[in-house]
Amino acid sequence: MVKVNENYLKLEKNYLFINIAKKVNAYKEANPDADIIRMGIGDVTLPICKAAVDAMKKGADEMGVKETFKGYEDSGAGYDFLREAVSNYYKSFGADVPADDIRINDGAKADCGNIVDIFGDDNTILITDPAYPVYVDSNRMSGRNVIFADSNEENGFAAMPDDNVKADIIYLCSPNNPTGSAYTKDQLKAWVDHANKNGSVIIYDAAYEAFITEDDIPKSIYLIDGAKTCAIEMCSLSKTAGFTGMRCGYTVVPEELTAKASDGTVVSLKQLWNRREGSKFNGVSYPVQCAAAAVFTPEGQEQIKVNISYYQQNAKTIAAALDELGIKYTGGKNSPYIWLKCPNGMGSWEFFDLLLEKANVVGTPGAGFGKNGEGWFRLTSFGDKDRTKEAMERLKKILK
Amino acid sequence: MVKVNENYLKLEKNYLFINIAKKVNAYKEANPDADIIRMGIGDVTLPICKAAVDAMKKGADEMGVKETFKGYEDSGAGYDFLREAVSNYYKSFGADVPADDIRINDGAKADCGNIVDIFGDDNTILITDPAYPVYVDSNRMSGRNVIFADSNEENGFAAMPDDNVKADIIYLCSPNNPTGSAYTKDQLKAWVDHANKNGSVIIYDAAYEAFITEDDIPKSIYLIDGAKTCAIEMCSLSKTAGFTGMRCGYTVVPEELTAKASDGTVVSLKQLWNRREGSKFNGVSYPVQCAAAAVFTPEGQEQIKVNISYYQQNAKTIAAALDELGIKYTGGKNSPYIWLKCPNGMGSWEFFDLLLEKANVVGTPGAGFGKNGEGWFRLTSFGDKDRTKEAMERLKKILK
Repeated sequence: MVKVNENYLKLEKNYLFINIAKKVNAYKEANPDADIIRMGIGDVTLPICKAAVDAMKKGADEMGVKETFKGYEDSGAGYDFLREAVSNYYKSFGADVPADDIRINDGAKADCGNIVDIFGDDNTILITDPAYPVYVDSNRMSGRNVIFADSNEENGFAAMPDDNVKADIIYLCSPNNPTGSAYTKDQLKAWVDHANKNGSVIIYDAAYEAFITEDDIPKSIYLIDGAKTCAIEMCSLSKTAGFTGMRCGYTVVPEELTAKASDGTVVSLKQLWNRREGSKFNGVSYPVQCAAAAVFTPEGQEQIKVNISYYQQNAKTIAAALDELGIKYTGGKNSPYIWLKCPNGMGSWEFFDLLLEKANVVGTPGAGFGKNGEGWFRLTSFGDKDRTKEAMERLKKILK
Repeated sequence: MVKVNENYLKLEKNYLFINIAKKVNAYKEANPDADIIRMGIGDVTLPICKAAVDAMKKGADEMGVKETFKGYEDSGAGYDFLREAVSNYYKSFGADVPADDIRINDGAKADCGNIVDIFGDDNTILITDPAYPVYVDSNRMSGRNVIFADSNEENGFAAMPDDNVKADIIYLCSPNNPTGSAYTKDQLKAWVDHANKNGSVIIYDAAYEAFITEDDIPKSIYLIDGAKTCAIEMCSLSKTAGFTGMRCGYTVVPEELTAKASDGTVVSLKQLWNRREGSKFNGVSYPVQCAAAAVFTPEGQEQIKVNISYYQQNAKTIAAALDELGIKYTGGKNSPYIWLKCPNGMGSWEFFDLLLEKANVVGTPGAGFGKNGEGWFRLTSFGDKDRTKEAMERLKKILK
C-alpha cells in the first residue's frame, strides 16, 4: 500500500499567490467592471529586450537545421557560452566565480526547492522571517526542523546572526523579498563569519541584485571574504531581464564548499549537486540559453538597464506617495519591492481587502511571508508607470 | 554543522552516460583521427520540425512586445492551449485524459526524479531490471528500499507481476528503455490489476510511445481499464519530436488517483503533486510551450512522422545486420532501441571496448542498466541513415 509524504499534509493547502488569485477572481466575478491594478505577485510587465528575442529566434532557427541542431547537453549544467557569460558578469562587479562552479537552471525557484535534496533531513534550517514561502515549504516538505530569525521594524527588517542560535543551513535573501531591505557588506560579513564558525551553509538568494544602487550593498555574497567556504548563491534573470516567462537562472556551488560526512569524509557539495542534477535535470532549452547569453552582452545590458530604471522610477512614485501619507516603509531603493506598515494598525489581510475593495489595487499581505509580516504589506514596482501612478492616487484618496 | 544527504555517498559516483563519454573522450585523445559513430546515448539527430521552429519564433516575438508579453504562468502547470493539445492527442488514440490532469514539464527526466517527493520514504519501490538509471538513483537518493523485477531473455525482457512480491510503487517503461520490448494490452492489464489489488502506484514512462507500430501495444496506460486509480504517466516530446534540447514533456496524475494517509484520510495525489510543483517549479518557457503545441497540430504531426519513419528505417538496418550475424535481440519494432546479446558470451563493457576500439562504434553497455543487462548491449536508431549503415558494415566486418 503506497504511503504518501505526510509532511505535505501539514503544509497549508495553498500557495500564497494562489490564495490571492482566488480572492481577486472572486472580487472580479462580483464586480466585473472593476478596473483592477495588480501590484501583488512580483511579476514584471515590460517585454524582454530585443537582444534576447533576436538570440532566441536565432537559436530556434539553429534547432531546425540538422547541422546546427542541439540535442541533450552533455552535462545539463548549461552551455559554456552562457556559463562563461555569467562568470564574466560576476567579474564585472569584482566577484571571482569560475564558470565551472555555475549551473544554469530554469529559474531560481526550482533550485531553491531542489538544493535541499543534497542535505540530510536532520539539519536545522534557519530562515529569516518574513521570507519567500518556498524556503519554508521546501524544507517542511522534507520534514526538516525550521527555525526563524526575526526581521522586524526594530532591525530594519534585516535579521542578524545570534551566537546562541546555531543552525546548519541558513537562508538569506538580499535585496530581500518581501521587505526590500538589503544587507551592507559589514552585515553580510557577520553572517559569513557566523556560518564559517559553525560549519553552516548559507543559501543566498540574489535574485534582486540588479536593483542595487548603493555602493555599500554587495551584488553577490562572493564579494565577502570567506563566502566560498560557506555559501551557495542563486540568481535569476527573471527580475533582471524580465525572464519570468522565459525561465532561466543560475546557481553557484563553489569548489571550495565542503561538508563532513558522519564518518569524517570530506564531501564536495558541488559534486553532490552535480550528481543530483545529473539524475533529475536535463538542462535548459537551448534557445532560452541563447536568449540569456544575449542579456549579458553589452547591447543586452544596455537594454535591460532601461527597464530596470523604469521600475526604479515606479518605486520612487510609490515611495513619494507613502511619504506623503506618512506611512512607514522599507525597500524601494535597492529593491523593486516596497514593504509598508499597514495604516491605522490594520492587519495584512484586512488591508488587502480594503485596498482591493476600495481602491481596486492588489498587493501582497505581509502575513503571507511569516509572522513578522503581520501588519505589513508588499507593493511591487514592476507595473506600468501610469497604472502605478493611478494606484498611488487611489491609495492617497482612500487613506487621506 | 551541516549534514549532507548520506544516501548520495552510497550511489555510484558517476552517471552511466558520463562514464561512457569519458571512455570515448580518452579513446579520441589517443586516436585523434578515429571516425567514431555514436549509437550510445539515446539522443536524436534530426532537427525539430518547421512547425515547431516557426511557433517558437512567434512566441519569442510575443515576448518582445508589451501587449503580448507573458510573465509567470498562474499555475505553472502549462498553458491551457498546450494542455488541451495534449489531451486531444490522447483522445486521438482513444485515451480519455482531461487537460486538468496534465502538467507540462521541462522533460520527463525531471518529473521522473521529482515525483518521488510526494511519497513517503518508507515505500518499497519495484523497478524492472534493466531500467533507465534515473528510477533507481532518484529513489536511492531518498534512501528508499528498491527491489527489482527481472526482465530477462526468458520473459523477452518484459517482467510480469509476481503475487508474492508486493511493492508500493512500481516503475514501468513501455516501449522499454533500454530493451525495446513493449507490453501488450493483456500484459499491462495484469500490472494494473496487480497494482489496484495491492494499493500500489505505477509510475508509467511512455516516452517512446510514438514508435509503437503494432495495434496490440497500448500507447498509454490509460487505455487499460482501472489505470486511473493506480497509475501516473509521464511522456515527453524528446523522442517524439526531437525535443531533447528543447525540453518539454508532460505528466498525468489522474483526479481518480488517491492514497490513504496513516490516519485514514483519503489524499489526492494530484493535489500533492500540484503542491510540490507549486513550490518547486515555475512552469516551462512560453516559447517552448508554443513549439510543443505546434507539434500537436495536423501539420506538426505530419512533419514529426517523417522523422520517426527515418529512425524506424535505421532500426530495420540494425535489425537486418544482427539477423545476418545471427545475433539475438529485442526491440527495434515498437521502439527506437535495439537490445542485443553480446556475441561469444562477452560482457557488456568488454563488448563496448571491442566495438569502440575495433569498429569505432559507440553503444551502451547493458550492464549500466542493471544486473540483467550484463551480457547485453543497447544500440539506438537515432543516428544518421548513412552512418547507421556504415556502423553495421563495420560490425559485420569485425564479428563475421
